[in-house]
Amino acid sequence: MRPVSASDGRDFVRSVSDKDVMAPLSRGAVRPRRIFIVGVRDPSAKEDAMRAAVITRLNSAWEFQDLADPEPGPGQVVVRIHACGMCYSDVLVHRGHWPVRLPIVPGHEPVGEVVALGPGTTTLRVGDRVGVSWMQRGEGRCAACQSWHPVACPHTTTWMDLGGGYADLMVAWETGCTLLPDGLDYTDAAVAFCAGFTSMSGLRNAEPRPGERVCVLGVGGLGHMAVQLAAAIGLETVVLTTSPDKAEYARELGAAEGVVVGDDPGKALADAGGADIILATTTSADLVARVLSGLRYGGRLVTMGVTGPLRIDDMTTLLFKQCSIKGSTHNNRSDLVEVLTLMAAGKVRPRVETYPFSEINEVLKRVEAGQVRYRAVLTPN
Amino acid sequence: MRPVSASDGRDFVRSVSDKDVMAPLSRGAVRPRRIFIVGVRDPSAKEDAMRAAVITRLNSAWEFQDLADPEPGPGQVVVRIHACGMCYSDVLVHRGHWPVRLPIVPGHEPVGEVVALGPGTTTLRVGDRVGVSWMQRGEGRCAACQSWHPVACPHTTTWMDLGGGYADLMVAWETGCTLLPDGLDYTDAAVAFCAGFTSMSGLRNAEPRPGERVCVLGVGGLGHMAVQLAAAIGLETVVLTTSPDKAEYARELGAAEGVVVGDDPGKALADAGGADIILATTTSADLVARVLSGLRYGGRLVTMGVTGPLRIDDMTTLLFKQCSIKGSTHNNRSDLVEVLTLMAAGKVRPRVETYPFSEINEVLKRVEAGQVRYRAVLTPN
Amino acid sequence: MRPVSASDGRDFVRSVSDKDVMAPLSRGAVRPRRIFIVGVRDPSAKEDAMRAAVITRLNSAWEFQDLADPEPGPGQVVVRIHACGMCYSDVLVHRGHWPVRLPIVPGHEPVGEVVALGPGTTTLRVGDRVGVSWMQRGEGRCAACQSWHPVACPHTTTWMDLGGGYADLMVAWETGCTLLPDGLDYTDAAVAFCAGFTSMSGLRNAEPRPGERVCVLGVGGLGHMAVQLAAAIGLETVVLTTSPDKAEYARELGAAEGVVVGDDPGKALADAGGADIILATTTSADLVARVLSGLRYGGRLVTMGVTGPLRIDDMTTLLFKQCSIKGSTHNNRSDLVEVLTLMAAGKVRPRVETYPFSEINEVLKRVEAGQVRYRAVLTPN
Amino acid sequence: MRPVSASDGRDFVRSVSDKDVMAPLSRGAVRPRRIFIVGVRDPSAKEDAMRAAVITRLNSAWEFQDLADPEPGPGQVVVRIHACGMCYSDVLVHRGHWPVRLPIVPGHEPVGEVVALGPGTTTLRVGDRVGVSWMQRGEGRCAACQSWHPVACPHTTTWMDLGGGYADLMVAWETGCTLLPDGLDYTDAAVAFCAGFTSMSGLRNAEPRPGERVCVLGVGGLGHMAVQLAAAIGLETVVLTTSPDKAEYARELGAAEGVVVGDDPGKALADAGGADIILATTTSADLVARVLSGLRYGGRLVTMGVTGPLRIDDMTTLLFKQCSIKGSTHNNRSDLVEVLTLMAAGKVRPRVETYPFSEINEVLKRVEAGQVRYRAVLTPN
Repeated sequence: MRPVSASDGRDFVRSVSDKDVMAPLSRGAVRPRRIFIVGVRDPSAKEDAMRAAVITRLNSAWEFQDLADPEPGPGQVVVRIHACGMCYSDVLVHRGHWPVRLPIVPGHEPVGEVVALGPGTTTLRVGDRVGVSWMQRGEGRCAACQSWHPVACPHTTTWMDLGGGYADLMVAWETGCTLLPDGLDYTDAAVAFCAGFTSMSGLRNAEPRPGERVCVLGVGGLGHMAVQLAAAIGLETVVLTTSPDKAEYARELGAAEGVVVGDDPGKALADAGGADIILATTTSADLVARVLSGLRYGGRLVTMGVTGPLRIDDMTTLLFKQCSIKGSTHNNRSDLVEVLTLMAAGKVRPRVETYPFSEINEVLKRVEAGQVRYRAVLTPN
Repeated sequence: MRPVSASDGRDFVRSVSDKDVMAPLSRGAVRPRRIFIVGVRDPSAKEDAMRAAVITRLNSAWEFQDLADPEPGPGQVVVRIHACGMCYSDVLVHRGHWPVRLPIVPGHEPVGEVVALGPGTTTLRVGDRVGVSWMQRGEGRCAACQSWHPVACPHTTTWMDLGGGYADLMVAWETGCTLLPDGLDYTDAAVAFCAGFTSMSGLRNAEPRPGERVCVLGVGGLGHMAVQLAAAIGLETVVLTTSPDKAEYARELGAAEGVVVGDDPGKALADAGGADIILATTTSADLVARVLSGLRYGGRLVTMGVTGPLRIDDMTTLLFKQCSIKGSTHNNRSDLVEVLTLMAAGKVRPRVETYPFSEINEVLKRVEAGQVRYRAVLTPN
Repeated sequence: MRPVSASDGRDFVRSVSDKDVMAPLSRGAVRPRRIFIVGVRDPSAKEDAMRAAVITRLNSAWEFQDLADPEPGPGQVVVRIHACGMCYSDVLVHRGHWPVRLPIVPGHEPVGEVVALGPGTTTLRVGDRVGVSWMQRGEGRCAACQSWHPVACPHTTTWMDLGGGYADLMVAWETGCTLLPDGLDYTDAAVAFCAGFTSMSGLRNAEPRPGERVCVLGVGGLGHMAVQLAAAIGLETVVLTTSPDKAEYARELGAAEGVVVGDDPGKALADAGGADIILATTTSADLVARVLSGLRYGGRLVTMGVTGPLRIDDMTTLLFKQCSIKGSTHNNRSDLVEVLTLMAAGKVRPRVETYPFSEINEVLKRVEAGQVRYRAVLTPN
Repeated sequence: MRPVSASDGRDFVRSVSDKDVMAPLSRGAVRPRRIFIVGVRDPSAKEDAMRAAVITRLNSAWEFQDLADPEPGPGQVVVRIHACGMCYSDVLVHRGHWPVRLPIVPGHEPVGEVVALGPGTTTLRVGDRVGVSWMQRGEGRCAACQSWHPVACPHTTTWMDLGGGYADLMVAWETGCTLLPDGLDYTDAAVAFCAGFTSMSGLRNAEPRPGERVCVLGVGGLGHMAVQLAAAIGLETVVLTTSPDKAEYARELGAAEGVVVGDDPGKALADAGGADIILATTTSADLVARVLSGLRYGGRLVTMGVTGPLRIDDMTTLLFKQCSIKGSTHNNRSDLVEVLTLMAAGKVRPRVETYPFSEINEVLKRVEAGQVRYRAVLTPN
């Protein structure tokens, strides 16, 4: 690996300097810091340069480029990627729905081996098996960060700042890396870092009580993890899906029941006994709105995927059954560690389709078309 | 008081027999029971017959009628009404938005003195000062009722089954009556039974943590109680209103700040420091939707009044700040007892306009027009 | 059944009049009420008089007597007993450790059929299958009762006021009766009313989170229910016992592990993985004190049985692992309904030894000697 | 500052190498790392060497020594001390009750200015005003640390590993430093880092609900902060003390009541209305045991100071009022940030006696004798 200097990688540089960083507790001035990311095109095009998939234009095929090996800055490490999952968010990035600046290396479910340590890293070691979560660190000085609650920090650092995992090597903050338990395959482990983490946080944010019943709405990357996670921590589960074969699959995965939803998902759920918790993994606002009436008294619906407008007609369920709707993304890292622990114990097993990096554009289309059962994971060629 | 038999009051009879009563735990058959309500027109028109306001037709002036004195059935008592508050729900009843069968005596914030005990009453005594809550009892045999959680019972008995409090006398289930603390005026106490109870349940359902900040949205009957209740249990409060004089009033009531809302209530709230909890006492779905962005990370908005469709455009706040929206009505009676206790301790004081029963139709118009500051309470002539 | 008057049953009368009843909210005077209990010796000794076991002297064999049939007062019912469990509390009553006034009919795990309704009963019907819980009602007017939280009432009515279930008939407050689900045997159902209820409240009071691990300490009447209940609501369980055959039994019951405890129960538990929750069903203060170190960080030990002094030497676990010790008895009735529901669903099954009422003194000795596996239930001859 | 090498400071070196470090998630081998602490006697005795108080023998006066300036390792910073509080723990260290290895620089409530940054520090800057908490970091690789919950890590790094704050300069982990809000005096801020933090965690661990009543037992360094913190977050407070002047002082501080305890603290508390929460800041096990009966139903006693055996005779309160006893130390850093925020807002103000470092042995005696009102803070000469 060669060092990357600000001069030779100018056009690939990302920094946090232009962020309107939150005033720290002490209200002191925050000086901009420059942080360099993977994605510096290697001018000498050596054969040992690393290869990466790069988004250069929106809605266009991702390009494979030879980039200079990344060098870890203070507090950072370099991870040799062994697998990186793909989800619908990647499609949204591809279409420009996320605020990324191009060119960028995408990939937010990466796992691999630590191969280089930056100055001042104190926890990880070369050879560690790790994954990198979406949020890698907060800005550090705000009240949330000072309280060790960086997910609430308004200026977090993510793969969009540093580059992602569809590459041979990836630089990441040490604080963004989580150790993998022994005996967990890289391809399985990758799924924990977005689908698993998101599902577990949704589940924990619903504040389940032992003995409660969980309905998982939608059986895709998130949903197929959510139902297993809920069952693995002892909750009764039911799966709602529009697809009979997914209903069957839900049964296999340990859900007590797989219910095929027709025109009235709320009624279908109520007829199947109702639920205390609905984990809505779908992106369909309409489906979420229409399933509400399946909640029991005091029930909670957690949406992890609806970003468009949500119109709730059924205020009766909300008011008179005292129900709630909650939005959820990743919590602090304990949920991720819980997913990894449950997977290592054999209680949760992602179902993945694996592809080589070289087929990334085909996989992207497959994800876009909703054809993957249930998560696509790419591995280096 | 004369007994009321089924034969002489046929057309005023209300019973629970036509309810599709929830199957009890034992799934045994539930036989219909007939329960008689106040509202039997006294055929002999004696001068000692009680007087009541009766809704005979929707959207028409309420009529004063002489009705036979009610007799308490088993487990019931008769209350001589000393005061009964009026709120916007009464306007909705008047317009036919609630499923009442006419003719009926309205009035759901009644307080008074127990003057007769039905067979089998074991707690109340003649002379007790009590109020009657909206929900008086569950059907008793369902899982919710068997668990002493009747508010979750799908077949509760309310004033709509028995008749309400705009009358000299009112029959009520003993289980629906709550004792008034000494030293609390009837006119003040009345406000506890709907505005106070609703506000307190909304507040408790938001699960406030000491040190959190509560925003009360709307300063009417509910709002002016909500802000005092939140402050009385030690929470920091801020009030959002479209009216400068109500903002001023909020300050008096102990809210740290009264904020006048312009076009962007969410921004107005955020500029005023944001809130962990928004207690939305307004009926405006639009206002509720637009205030969401004023929530802090992990914030909760509780709506007590929006019954129409609620369209949430701001899913970003919900998802990325992990916020929730909850509907709320009355909880179990502990919230009501808490309101009464805080009022008796002088920590919460409703601001009421009092009127004689005889002006009830004028008061109804005043409530409809939103002119009351902040609660209208009617007292017997 | 014949009515019982105050005059003909003087020496068997129990009343609540001598209780220092808690001041109600309104601080009004509380007039004593006399409530009559089962246990009136039938002067005419008819052959149709009911038979009951009566404690006439402490530490003496219980006597069988012919007593007049009880008549239900207002709000009360009469239950024909089909089964009544016995636990170590009965031994303590026998020895005088509970404040009962003699003579009294004992028996606090009774189930049977409602055969008579007192005036003003509004929920139960003749023919209902019910059980009677230890606490039947609060005094009604205190803040706890007014808040529908009678378990916190300092003046509750129990079988010690009304007489218990070792009799053909038993009078009980309607509020103290809980409906039995269909398909649940009386002998099994009886165990829910003390062993099951106590265990479930202990478990719920520990505030378990899905995914947590529960250690049940002691496998007797309570313990054998506790382990099944914890497993039935999806928690991981481990059983600690001094007896190898009980450890084996624990495995059968669905506990992941049965651990035989030697000199250091805390170490034995820690070696077996530790626990987030210890449900201590034992009466041994020493065992409870020595098991603390088996708690994980943030762990909770709930004791349901230690009434003697508890000396905690291991403050290190308490302070530095932030653990807690909680005492627990019956909560509000939702826990009991949950036990009955889990039993009816076949998820929890008590293991009982059944005996006819006529062998009650032999059973008492067997309970005293700790020989019962795991609950003794008596049924009418 | 001169670098410290392993060779020239051998006998003052502390390392974590001899710790039986917890197996990480991946069960990989953990290689020992050497970390150097302040306390290296400067062989050249330059006049610019820093001065520190050093414990060289237990139960002996602390010595002032000239030590080489410390150099920050990776992830560490150097703080120029402006103030450092002293509490009874220092007396216990002095007596050998804590597992420190001599010689060592004590002092665990230090605040000051960051003057040097080690490699890889990413959050702090030279000139930052910070304090250093007792626990500075976990070992990083265990499940607790990976979950960002280092307080549950069994191998944390504290001032006992690195040396404390009674010195001109102190080295600390960046992760152990918390920014001070503007406008907060160093002498006041120091008290937040042990007395404030401990009290706030005790309070938060009691899980207070708005409207509950908190009793603070003991008015010393912790107690005088605890009562202010409870009041600052809106809780009703009462103070129990054996000293009439402290009762008076409690009133001034905002406690509703200061109660002088006689022979029966439980009864004294009950007579004063009881409490939902008792924050026991005392070291007296006897006092803690005897105050239990002052808890209300469902009450919680949190002890922060009892390390010796605790004998609970009053199991009746525990069982029948469903109360609990919890041990508490520092939680994650959010409680500390909350204390600092409340102090900066002027809602909590420690009462301190300030002394120059040179009088440290006199101050130690004063603390030992319980003469300080209410916290002693030392400042550099």
